[in-house]
Amino acid sequence: MSSNEFVLYTAPNTCGLACHIALEDRGAPYHISVIDVQSGQQNTADYLEINPAGRVPALRLPNQRVITEAPAILAYLGFTDCRSPLRSLPDDTLASIFTFNNYLSSTVHVAHAHKRRGERWADDVASLEDMKRRVPLNMAACFRLIHESMFVGPWALGDFYSIVDPLLFVVTGWLEQDGVSLADYPKIQSHKAAMLKRPPVQRAMAMVSAD
Amino acid sequence: MSSNEFVLYTAPNTCGLACHIALEDRGAPYHISVIDVQSGQQNTADYLEINPAGRVPALRLPNQRVITEAPAILAYLGFTDCRSPLRSLPDDTLASIFTFNNYLSSTVHVAHAHKRRGERWADDVASLEDMKRRVPLNMAACFRLIHESMFVGPWALGDFYSIVDPLLFVVTGWLEQDGVSLADYPKIQSHKAAMLKRPPVQRAMAMVSAD
Repeated sequence: MSSNEFVLYTAPNTCGLACHIALEDRGAPYHISVIDVQSGQQNTADYLEINPAGRVPALRLPNQRVITEAPAILAYLGFTDCRSPLRSLPDDTLASIFTFNNYLSSTVHVAHAHKRRGERWADDVASLEDMKRRVPLNMAACFRLIHESMFVGPWALGDFYSIVDPLLFVVTGWLEQDGVSLADYPKIQSHKAAMLKRPPVQRAMAMVSAD
Repeated sequence: MSSNEFVLYTAPNTCGLACHIALEDRGAPYHISVIDVQSGQQNTADYLEINPAGRVPALRLPNQRVITEAPAILAYLGFTDCRSPLRSLPDDTLASIFTFNNYLSSTVHVAHAHKRRGERWADDVASLEDMKRRVPLNMAACFRLIHESMFVGPWALGDFYSIVDPLLFVVTGWLEQDGVSLADYPKIQSHKAAMLKRPPVQRAMAMVSAD
């Protein structure tokens, strides 16, 4: 790989896919490094040098600096994309982008993580089972709020595609496995279908798949 | 209150204080509306019209638009502060700001919330107790990472004060009640002391106190 490429460290079915889509949207050269989170590669010494938090995604810039946290990677890619400059949006529109992605990251992603990653916050098997039982309820509540109060349509914030759309798309992709029917949120269902028609989304999904 | 003021909906000892400090840093006229989260005011119909997620903080702009999620409010206040324009920072520095605040919001705040807000993710009393036991360990792990890998000093990202500093200050303030000794993280302890010397911090803390 060339040293003037971006390198995205990611794993299938994680919010790394949102960053991967943003790289495809952006059109700059990049390389993908798939981290095997099933075997714990994110906690090896080599990976902890890249991201000391032991999480995917992480984005290595051409200047070798590393950015972590999906919403920050998305913001970086959006801010530096000269074809779709976030910096020219009105301030309160920009704030809506940050609000939506922060909600997805700190509330919805966290609600989802209590299904398979409950050991982050509790030890007993009974606690982990208790957490798992709440995941469908919590994810449904989050998507009710998104559907009724946050999503504008056809894209997350209205007529313009933004760095919210890839992250919403990825989180939406977790609903069925979390026991929630996407059909309950018809606007989000249409958003997912619109995302699946985009060539950058198709390319990113074909490149890193869970199969 | 005048309609050309900001209105911050906040509560004592929450990340609303970080937004309050940022308003003081900014120097624009604002009004504070304290929400009684102990009595559940954040879930009343009146407040849900302001923030349908039923959480503090929320910031009403002079144009009546409402921004929610503390990192988004901080980003908005930073981006629109002509004296400290985030927009003029290099892109990768800006990314570091987003990374740090997203980590504080989606990992550290969430770790802390499992002490008193465990009912968000589980039902059984035993699960809630199990979660509480893990809070000191998780908060210590978060601050070890912050101290060793993220914090630059003297301010969070180096020589320049940014919208990371108020949020780090607030989260640091939760450590003792979470059973973690701040003395274990001397650089963060110095940061807290430096923040407490700032008049904007003193004014915000005097205006909304938990006592």
